[in-house]
Amino acid sequence: MKEKILNILLGERLRDSELAGEKFNVLWGIPVFASDAISSVSYAGEEILLVLIPVLGYASYHSFLPIVAAIIGLLAILVFCYRQTIDAYPQGGGAYIVANANLGETYGLIAGGALIIGYVLTVAVSACAGAAAVTSAFPELSSMKVGIALLLIALLTWGNLRGLRESAVMFGVPTYLFILVMIALIITGLIRFMTGNYTPAQIQLVTTDSTEMLLFVILRAFASGCTALTGVEAVANGVPNFKAPETVNAKKVLYAMAGFVCLIFLGVSVLICLYQITPNEHVTAVSQLAAAVFGGGSIMFYIVQIMTVVILTLAANTAFAGLPLIMALMAKDNYLPKRLVYRGARLNYSNGILFLFGAASVLVIAFRASQHLLLPLYASGVFISFLLSQLGMLKHWMLHKGEGWKLKALVNGFGTVITACTLVIILIMKFTQGAWVTLLCIILLVYLMLRIRQNYDRVQADLSLSSIEEARSLLRSSTSSKVIIPVQSLSRSFIKTLNCATSCGFSEIEFYHVSSSEERALQLKKEIEALQIPASTFRYDVTPYRNTEDVLLRHIEAAQDALAPHEHLTVMIGRLVVKHRSHRILHNRTNENIIARMEKYRNVYVFTVPYLAK
Amino acid sequence: MKEKILNILLGERLRDSELAGEKFNVLWGIPVFASDAISSVSYAGEEILLVLIPVLGYASYHSFLPIVAAIIGLLAILVFCYRQTIDAYPQGGGAYIVANANLGETYGLIAGGALIIGYVLTVAVSACAGAAAVTSAFPELSSMKVGIALLLIALLTWGNLRGLRESAVMFGVPTYLFILVMIALIITGLIRFMTGNYTPAQIQLVTTDSTEMLLFVILRAFASGCTALTGVEAVANGVPNFKAPETVNAKKVLYAMAGFVCLIFLGVSVLICLYQITPNEHVTAVSQLAAAVFGGGSIMFYIVQIMTVVILTLAANTAFAGLPLIMALMAKDNYLPKRLVYRGARLNYSNGILFLFGAASVLVIAFRASQHLLLPLYASGVFISFLLSQLGMLKHWMLHKGEGWKLKALVNGFGTVITACTLVIILIMKFTQGAWVTLLCIILLVYLMLRIRQNYDRVQADLSLSSIEEARSLLRSSTSSKVIIPVQSLSRSFIKTLNCATSCGFSEIEFYHVSSSEERALQLKKEIEALQIPASTFRYDVTPYRNTEDVLLRHIEAAQDALAPHEHLTVMIGRLVVKHRSHRILHNRTNENIIARMEKYRNVYVFTVPYLAK
Repeated sequence: MKEKILNILLGERLRDSELAGEKFNVLWGIPVFASDAISSVSYAGEEILLVLIPVLGYASYHSFLPIVAAIIGLLAILVFCYRQTIDAYPQGGGAYIVANANLGETYGLIAGGALIIGYVLTVAVSACAGAAAVTSAFPELSSMKVGIALLLIALLTWGNLRGLRESAVMFGVPTYLFILVMIALIITGLIRFMTGNYTPAQIQLVTTDSTEMLLFVILRAFASGCTALTGVEAVANGVPNFKAPETVNAKKVLYAMAGFVCLIFLGVSVLICLYQITPNEHVTAVSQLAAAVFGGGSIMFYIVQIMTVVILTLAANTAFAGLPLIMALMAKDNYLPKRLVYRGARLNYSNGILFLFGAASVLVIAFRASQHLLLPLYASGVFISFLLSQLGMLKHWMLHKGEGWKLKALVNGFGTVITACTLVIILIMKFTQGAWVTLLCIILLVYLMLRIRQNYDRVQADLSLSSIEEARSLLRSSTSSKVIIPVQSLSRSFIKTLNCATSCGFSEIEFYHVSSSEERALQLKKEIEALQIPASTFRYDVTPYRNTEDVLLRHIEAAQDALAPHEHLTVMIGRLVVKHRSHRILHNRTNENIIARMEKYRNVYVFTVPYLAK
Repeated sequence: MKEKILNILLGERLRDSELAGEKFNVLWGIPVFASDAISSVSYAGEEILLVLIPVLGYASYHSFLPIVAAIIGLLAILVFCYRQTIDAYPQGGGAYIVANANLGETYGLIAGGALIIGYVLTVAVSACAGAAAVTSAFPELSSMKVGIALLLIALLTWGNLRGLRESAVMFGVPTYLFILVMIALIITGLIRFMTGNYTPAQIQLVTTDSTEMLLFVILRAFASGCTALTGVEAVANGVPNFKAPETVNAKKVLYAMAGFVCLIFLGVSVLICLYQITPNEHVTAVSQLAAAVFGGGSIMFYIVQIMTVVILTLAANTAFAGLPLIMALMAKDNYLPKRLVYRGARLNYSNGILFLFGAASVLVIAFRASQHLLLPLYASGVFISFLLSQLGMLKHWMLHKGEGWKLKALVNGFGTVITACTLVIILIMKFTQGAWVTLLCIILLVYLMLRIRQNYDRVQADLSLSSIEEARSLLRSSTSSKVIIPVQSLSRSFIKTLNCATSCGFSEIEFYHVSSSEERALQLKKEIEALQIPASTFRYDVTPYRNTEDVLLRHIEAAQDALAPHEHLTVMIGRLVVKHRSHRILHNRTNENIIARMEKYRNVYVFTVPYLAK
């Protein structure tokens, strides 16, 4: 029944051998990995202008295109660098793997932590943006904004739980549609402008008497515009998600993504300048552009609006493709719970997907679905992972050399300098707005991951055997002599436990009873002796304090202390199993508590004999 | 460490034999059992006037004293009736025991449910009243009213967890103080009035053109005044809490309580008429009386105010003395979880006390500490238990007869008629104000308790053995032949499990492995065969679906199906035990899940062998 429902919801389970079929080809890889980057582009130009216009007024358009060009230059550098990363580290994981391999554990974890936080934020921000679009179209739903955002996350989670390939098609078609719509917008806009068939929109004059220095403003605009670059690292993180030859396909997707980002960002930015678009809080730049190019009430205008909302929501899909893979890599290295390593019924990392669902939902609820509060946390984490990735690659070339390493090192060295400068700019400009939260979270995450690693290492060292010889040396051939069976009353559960004990062939059975009165103990003694179990003794203690558990455990401890170093003691104890969890509260949990406490004794074998209540 | 803290907080644990010393004598029994009844009296007169004055104006004082007299008459009847209950049912439990024994299970449970709800409401209402008094004295604390109410409940819980005797002294002294203060108020008031040394307070004229019939108003006032009688049943519920001779002492306390209630209620009511007190929403009748008698700014005025607050809060103490005992009686009859039967370290029913703490806290939070919302739920439950108690006693005398039974039956018969009439009046007057909630809760509680009883009966029938012969017939002497040990890899935990199995002397060991690939399985097979365990076989299955649990369980099920009817199969399985609960998330829970699912197989012995991770 449960299986059938899961099959309908998620599709038939897949065999291990079907993994290759679940990977992306170039066609479907592009929308999955590009949706984050392209969605950032749709608002990056606006972010720049929102910083410039209040200070520079009309002069903004002079500074605007150079800033856009600088960001596109930075994009080109990053693409070159990540191309090298893909070749050098085809197992994926991007910044985490590169930093871990070349800069050491701590830097690897910082990069990994930054990626985790970045991806979780991607999902939360996208869902909030999608919900905001829905509620601004239907204001009567605005009280349900948090619920709508959670619904969008649930929808993406569901699609991704169905498997990589299914989600790629489900969410890929709208991404391509958005790209087409934007290209149509750019071409139409250029044609309309060149054919002179255009009346400029009424430009709102905004001037301030701000005395902020020009450089400061431009740097701040640059920092804001850098959101255009989030999502660029996604391809390098997710190389193993591509069909073979993985690196070739990944690089194709990387180029295609960069091409689309460049085209749309540049095109939209040029149009903004040509049409002298002035974004404000209520109407986005893209929306104004669409109105200017297609006319405010035209069908194309509404299509642009709808597709913008869709792409903003789908940006989250990149995180669903990237984060579970990175977390699986980190879990494989013992930095995260092992369950993140295992693939689910549909061959995706279902636990990672569910984590992303949970974490993003918590953020959405905590920030009441307001993306304006979430956005400042965003860019700093992304650029920390950029920087560590570049620095790691630089070190990689210097250590491993190889063909043409000097040029490659130069590319990554340049990337290091640029991303470092950008990170510094972002941190200075955004620190008080929330970047400090991101830094704090990364530090906490690194600490937590180091502790997890320690725990795993300790347990694995304790469990592991270096050789068959060591295993054989630990084998004991002695048949144990004595078993202690705690007994409170004669019941079927006790008889089952006793049958277990006799079937194991213990040479001596000790029944042990804790009672509040001598008479009760003697009565039980009489009953049990009437069973005539061979080689059995009955011992009891009387306590006036109603602390059966403590007295029993003290007895077991005393018996344990009397053991020779390599001997073991066996305790067999019945346990009532009820059919429904809710019934547990009705039944005495004494035995459960005793079992849990005895499990901490190293020299005691605890056998629990379940008795299933009707 | 933990023990020491508990000793300091709750006092040294007590021996079973010290139970007698933990019971009440008459001196300390009076404040514990009277505080609820006396606290009701302090506002009952006011409740009557609040109904009368808006309709009848000055004429209210003519109707007031007859209503008070009727309520005191009702009190006298109840005292007589409960005196007979104490004699007939010295084990306590009041309405529950009486109705259960004479009217049958369902009526017993209705009475018990009504008592439980009544007592929980007592605590919630008292705490809210106390918190309201604190916040009206210190308005700056009013945003913390819920917190203050919870703190008061916690304080009472703590006092009661320390044991009956300690709480009686802790909370008994203030009760006696209140009684003294009220007597002083009544005597001084009478003297001042008679010596003519009194100027009447300025009476606010309140008249309405309401056309409600006189009878209706008087009945409604009577229903409101009946809150004075809540708490009367407490003594009969708690007979076993008294020192021997229990029934004699209980009856003394019952008389003393009735005497105090009568004296204070009558005295205050007469003073109200003499001084023509007109209560309003902001100043209580007792407060106005104190101002008129002692002067508004006098020390005695403030003492009356403070002691009223204290007694309102301490009313809850009666519930703490009564409810845990009733719940223990009901749990002994299998209607409530068994853990309510056991006494804690200080010989009180600590689980019942903690339940009362939890339930009252939930009510306080749900109703945001507003006693005005809680009060209407109150009286109907109390009178349902009164009625069932009277009806049960009537039946009792008719069934058992005994010396002078006709007179006793007459007393209880009269009590039945009177309480039935009162209940009808209360239900009609208060139904829409919240009495329906109480009725609904009682019905749900009765249903739940019947289900609990069913569950216990089923489990006990399944577990119990009718005789030693039956027990012997279930004993099996066969030493079991075969054990299945699921194995995923060679580890120290596996070696420990294996040592357990060999020490039990199984004649045949089957290692069973579920793998995702043939190679891994064969590799493990080689390793395990190198251990050279005699009489062992290695079996494995390969699954491409990563569903190890399901495949393993299917294998066990198949082995179980192959058993002869009386044979058992043994499965031995290792379980990693981590030291801290929080570490559990890090480790694979596959074995835990398998163990939990196997425990439902009736013919499988599941031995879990814990391995404590370092």
